[in-house]
Amino acid sequence: MDDSYVGYARAAQAFEPPEPGAPGVHASAWVDEDAVIHESAVIAAQCSVAAGAVIGAGAYLGPGCSVGRDSVIGDDCWLAGNVVLRHGVTLGRRVRVQPGAVIGSDGFGMAQENGRWIRVPQLGGVRIGDDVDIGANTTIDRGALDDTVIEKGVKLDNQIQIAHNVHIGENTAVAACTGISGSTRIGRSCTIAGGVGIAGHLEIADNVHLSGMAMVTKSISEAGAYASGTGLEPQARWRRNTVRYHQLDSLARRLIALEKKFGDPD
Amino acid sequence: MDDSYVGYARAAQAFEPPEPGAPGVHASAWVDEDAVIHESAVIAAQCSVAAGAVIGAGAYLGPGCSVGRDSVIGDDCWLAGNVVLRHGVTLGRRVRVQPGAVIGSDGFGMAQENGRWIRVPQLGGVRIGDDVDIGANTTIDRGALDDTVIEKGVKLDNQIQIAHNVHIGENTAVAACTGISGSTRIGRSCTIAGGVGIAGHLEIADNVHLSGMAMVTKSISEAGAYASGTGLEPQARWRRNTVRYHQLDSLARRLIALEKKFGDPD
Amino acid sequence: MDDSYVGYARAAQAFEPPEPGAPGVHASAWVDEDAVIHESAVIAAQCSVAAGAVIGAGAYLGPGCSVGRDSVIGDDCWLAGNVVLRHGVTLGRRVRVQPGAVIGSDGFGMAQENGRWIRVPQLGGVRIGDDVDIGANTTIDRGALDDTVIEKGVKLDNQIQIAHNVHIGENTAVAACTGISGSTRIGRSCTIAGGVGIAGHLEIADNVHLSGMAMVTKSISEAGAYASGTGLEPQARWRRNTVRYHQLDSLARRLIALEKKFGDPD
Repeated sequence: MDDSYVGYARAAQAFEPPEPGAPGVHASAWVDEDAVIHESAVIAAQCSVAAGAVIGAGAYLGPGCSVGRDSVIGDDCWLAGNVVLRHGVTLGRRVRVQPGAVIGSDGFGMAQENGRWIRVPQLGGVRIGDDVDIGANTTIDRGALDDTVIEKGVKLDNQIQIAHNVHIGENTAVAACTGISGSTRIGRSCTIAGGVGIAGHLEIADNVHLSGMAMVTKSISEAGAYASGTGLEPQARWRRNTVRYHQLDSLARRLIALEKKFGDPD
Repeated sequence: MDDSYVGYARAAQAFEPPEPGAPGVHASAWVDEDAVIHESAVIAAQCSVAAGAVIGAGAYLGPGCSVGRDSVIGDDCWLAGNVVLRHGVTLGRRVRVQPGAVIGSDGFGMAQENGRWIRVPQLGGVRIGDDVDIGANTTIDRGALDDTVIEKGVKLDNQIQIAHNVHIGENTAVAACTGISGSTRIGRSCTIAGGVGIAGHLEIADNVHLSGMAMVTKSISEAGAYASGTGLEPQARWRRNTVRYHQLDSLARRLIALEKKFGDPD
Repeated sequence: MDDSYVGYARAAQAFEPPEPGAPGVHASAWVDEDAVIHESAVIAAQCSVAAGAVIGAGAYLGPGCSVGRDSVIGDDCWLAGNVVLRHGVTLGRRVRVQPGAVIGSDGFGMAQENGRWIRVPQLGGVRIGDDVDIGANTTIDRGALDDTVIEKGVKLDNQIQIAHNVHIGENTAVAACTGISGSTRIGRSCTIAGGVGIAGHLEIADNVHLSGMAMVTKSISEAGAYASGTGLEPQARWRRNTVRYHQLDSLARRLIALEKKFGDPD
């Protein structure tokens, strides 16, 4: 992306329609008397804001948003509509959240006892830095004890899943349908394409670039581009190749045996 | 699927319970005075409808739906509940939308400047044809300049992600958890199974059939069935085969060297 | 996970903040006069509860939840907020549902007639057992005729898709972003990792463990651990290996031909 695209981005911002609604709380919204709403903020129809919440100057909450106890929404944040922030979530300034996103849902923590699962309460929160974008129906779980952290300038597309205690470094961009498992740390300025799956408790270095549908099961300590998966092919050919894939270890052993018998071909 | 299944489908429609609610706007809903609601439409509890929106005859908006400025909902549309339509979205007639779907969220457009991301405003809309079905928690982004287009008769399952400026042709069906990246054009009468990932800026021909979890990184110009990925196997065997997979290019070179040394086996 | 983790889980439950809200129906909520709400239940702001619904003792419905006709919410259930239950959904006791989850959306049933899709009405419901957890933005479709069934003690993470007439056995745990296609039966005490895709009409035995992003296209009759997919590698190397993958059947045939010519290497 070159400078002219940056120029276009800036110019186009002048053409965006402003959000409707004068500052203040809409008649159909409900705000707890112990919430603090800046006088320049817009709280649209059907919203609810719980006790202890703080809504900053110039913030916009679209229709049907819900803000939990003691959550803080920074100045000039924009929540499109039907966004759910549970309790103890902090958004920096100018955070933009698309509809249906959920921030602060309980992480998936369980202990096993006699074959049954015991729920592990999720006592941490979520901290989102300045200028973060969060896509539609993306989910960000709260931490188990410490917080889940999204650093400033991170861009998250739609339908991304961020598990408890994940940490994403500055200016990393993640495309749609990617899932990041618990306690994984992702570096700065990474680009993660769509449909990627990243296992838990990994460390991903700065400037790592993952291609679409990559399956990441180990930490990555070197910057660079990584991929996994096998490309598309006509179904009949795919069927033949996938059968051979399941014989791959055996085929390799047989090749090595031939080499042994007939000497190094070089 | 044969004719008897079509007959069953038609017969079963008689057994569907009607949605509750008399025509009109529920007391707990909020409708802007500059919206136009047909007198036979039902606007259920906790809905919000913005200025300039038009809701057609016989349309049903279930609890908690939100319709943005200047969006148009055609006759006999049915929105289950908690559906979000942002501004400038047009639904044809008889469009059915399951709960939690989001239509018209901002596309994921960014320009890079000095290592930081600049948001590219998304100024297009979304146009949905007649008789389209949209699944629960599916997201359809608005276009960057032109519209995102879903043609008539398209069927979309749950948790599908449609990026900005995607175009899906008539009567194509897409199963759950599939993601389609920006500006990709998909033909008519395709069937796309679940969990498929399709990269951006591709052209997929008419009558293409993609199997589950297929990874599509190139355009497809011929009708037919396509697949990718490797099948499931017991973990111990999978571990051996995946090690060999990473040696595959080397193994192939060694096979070719053996062939060279000993002549064509035929 | 050992006993000390179970101990921690129990201890931590004492530190969870209680949900706000005194028993009763919030002023901004709407409850049909033909719904039955236990006097100890909490119905928070912006909720809607339809006719025939039953809400049990100690149940909590967070902000913006919507409960459809004749749905039953058992004692001590907890719905975080913006949860949609459509009609005819039954939750056992102590079911916990994270924000944005949808239960009872229409299954993806269609018959084809002259190249067009005819919708097959989904007349079944959803039955959820005691002590089930359901993650944020997870979707569970209602059955076509019979019910979709989630047995007691099942734990579902975020953004999971459960299609119509799926049956999940007791104490099975499913991680985020997994999709399970229609009519598949999953046994008891399975663990299914994130991003897994399971085709329709399969039978998965008890105590099956699937690794992340596994692609399951056949029934599994034996307990054990299963995997699929190829691991991550640097993009340049991946490109070479994936080219060879598409030659795999041909390479295998050539290896077999060499073996024939030169005899069994053993």
